[in-house]
Amino acid sequence: MSNDLDATRARIKNSFNKQTIMTTIGASIVSVEPGEVVIRLPFREGISQQDGFVHAGVITTIIDSACGYAAMTLMPDEARVLTIEFKSNFASPAVGDYFLAKGTVKKSGNTIMITTGEVYAYTANFEDNDDQQKEGKLVSLMQASMMVIHPK
Amino acid sequence: MSNDLDATRARIKNSFNKQTIMTTIGASIVSVEPGEVVIRLPFREGISQQDGFVHAGVITTIIDSACGYAAMTLMPDEARVLTIEFKSNFASPAVGDYFLAKGTVKKSGNTIMITTGEVYAYTANFEDNDDQQKEGKLVSLMQASMMVIHPK
Amino acid sequence: MSNDLDATRARIKNSFNKQTIMTTIGASIVSVEPGEVVIRLPFREGISQQDGFVHAGVITTIIDSACGYAAMTLMPDEARVLTIEFKSNFASPAVGDYFLAKGTVKKSGNTIMITTGEVYAYTANFEDNDDQQKEGKLVSLMQASMMVIHPK
Amino acid sequence: MSNDLDATRARIKNSFNKQTIMTTIGASIVSVEPGEVVIRLPFREGISQQDGFVHAGVITTIIDSACGYAAMTLMPDEARVLTIEFKSNFASPAVGDYFLAKGTVKKSGNTIMITTGEVYAYTANFEDNDDQQKEGKLVSLMQASMMVIHPK
Repeated sequence: MSNDLDATRARIKNSFNKQTIMTTIGASIVSVEPGEVVIRLPFREGISQQDGFVHAGVITTIIDSACGYAAMTLMPDEARVLTIEFKSNFASPAVGDYFLAKGTVKKSGNTIMITTGEVYAYTANFEDNDDQQKEGKLVSLMQASMMVIHPK
Repeated sequence: MSNDLDATRARIKNSFNKQTIMTTIGASIVSVEPGEVVIRLPFREGISQQDGFVHAGVITTIIDSACGYAAMTLMPDEARVLTIEFKSNFASPAVGDYFLAKGTVKKSGNTIMITTGEVYAYTANFEDNDDQQKEGKLVSLMQASMMVIHPK
Repeated sequence: MSNDLDATRARIKNSFNKQTIMTTIGASIVSVEPGEVVIRLPFREGISQQDGFVHAGVITTIIDSACGYAAMTLMPDEARVLTIEFKSNFASPAVGDYFLAKGTVKKSGNTIMITTGEVYAYTANFEDNDDQQKEGKLVSLMQASMMVIHPK
Repeated sequence: MSNDLDATRARIKNSFNKQTIMTTIGASIVSVEPGEVVIRLPFREGISQQDGFVHAGVITTIIDSACGYAAMTLMPDEARVLTIEFKSNFASPAVGDYFLAKGTVKKSGNTIMITTGEVYAYTANFEDNDDQQKEGKLVSLMQASMMVIHPK
């Protein structure tokens, strides 16, 4: 099915490139696998809240898209995806050199897909023995419902 | 208590101005009242998802801040606010000329404040008899917990 | 449309009577209006958590049903309702002589209805000047998505 | 630390036994490990919604308690636990002979613990080659915040 997966990846990258907010905040797709998508966000000026951390809404923006595209990998080619709702818990302030958001499909349905997402923060230059930094630090957890919009 | 409220407004505007994401997306504070804050976001390039609607994460960014600052109006002066978690439902695509996000405190506590938020979309040039547009169209509903960080 | 509303009330009461959990915990329907349903739960033995308060899951049971039936009032007669997801914040421990859960439809859709719910606690024998008790005390807030199941 | 874990298990079982709703619905603790607790609920009369499935609120009752006790395993001995909020997605109707709810701590904090929970449905007498039933069927996913109540 690698052709299908290649086509899915192309559709998702095409869709992602139309998301102008991703260019604005500097996010990019790292990987697209069936039921799992990873998005990367480097720290930069212009995306922070009042204490200099990345704003919870920006963190939510990348997890939401990671979850939505994870859902899209399991949809028919012509379907579109729309976020019904999401819930995010924040485990620690979004401090780091870059952030990885992973979206995963937990339940695939014909109308609704249930997804979960995680964002971890990473420091670029960590000591080799700093396992905490190697593994990343949990920033946020999401649980979201995605709607499958079938063409009429 | 108008002096206190003036001081609170000054603190909140000062904090808002430090949120670099607000400049990036073009959001501004409309009003700060005890337990209620309104933020305005005009539509612009660079904040959309793949279909040209404002990204759900951007909508969430302004409600989250409206809820956080609504909570801050009821906190001691020296306290800071941090988002514990939020949940957003999306009622319709974020299409419009501008958006108003209102955050309201539902339960004020010493450690945690429960808030709700709403975002409505508006069209700038509506017919005078178009009540739907005058009232705005519901885009998103939020329910969020804010933490009161007391200085040590 | 009173005939229609009467028919809707009859369908909802019939459905409620099939919910065996409602008999088990002692809940009953107070009112059914278009887009709004109220359910009442008296305090009793057998529904508490470890501190003697009503268990958060029991409180959630009555709000979930109030929200679901509020959604049902706006559905076609032959449709069924299923909870997609809900989110509850708990404002204060569920202590009181009885509890009222009100579910309200915020956005009515063909496939999904967005609802909100509130539970207040009341004391049966309050002092006449005790406005707090007259008004009830906020116990829990819910935001929920209900699915409209159309017959095939 | 087996003594400590034994003491923790004893405290949790003691607390669980005070939850009168657990007797009412017929739930019991399966296991208590550091950061993870499993609760079992057999199907029985008196816990259903209108279609005969276990009510979403009952499913939520057991996940909430599994998450709360999972948090308690990582708290100081004298602390108590209170649910701040939870969010549940429902993946499939709660049909089965019994249900297992697993609560897991994702982020342990001094004031707030972030937990996730899952409920799976099982059929008692499945065919040996029915992997679906052996593994259980996902009924519900929860994401919850638990408050650590330190003694004064």
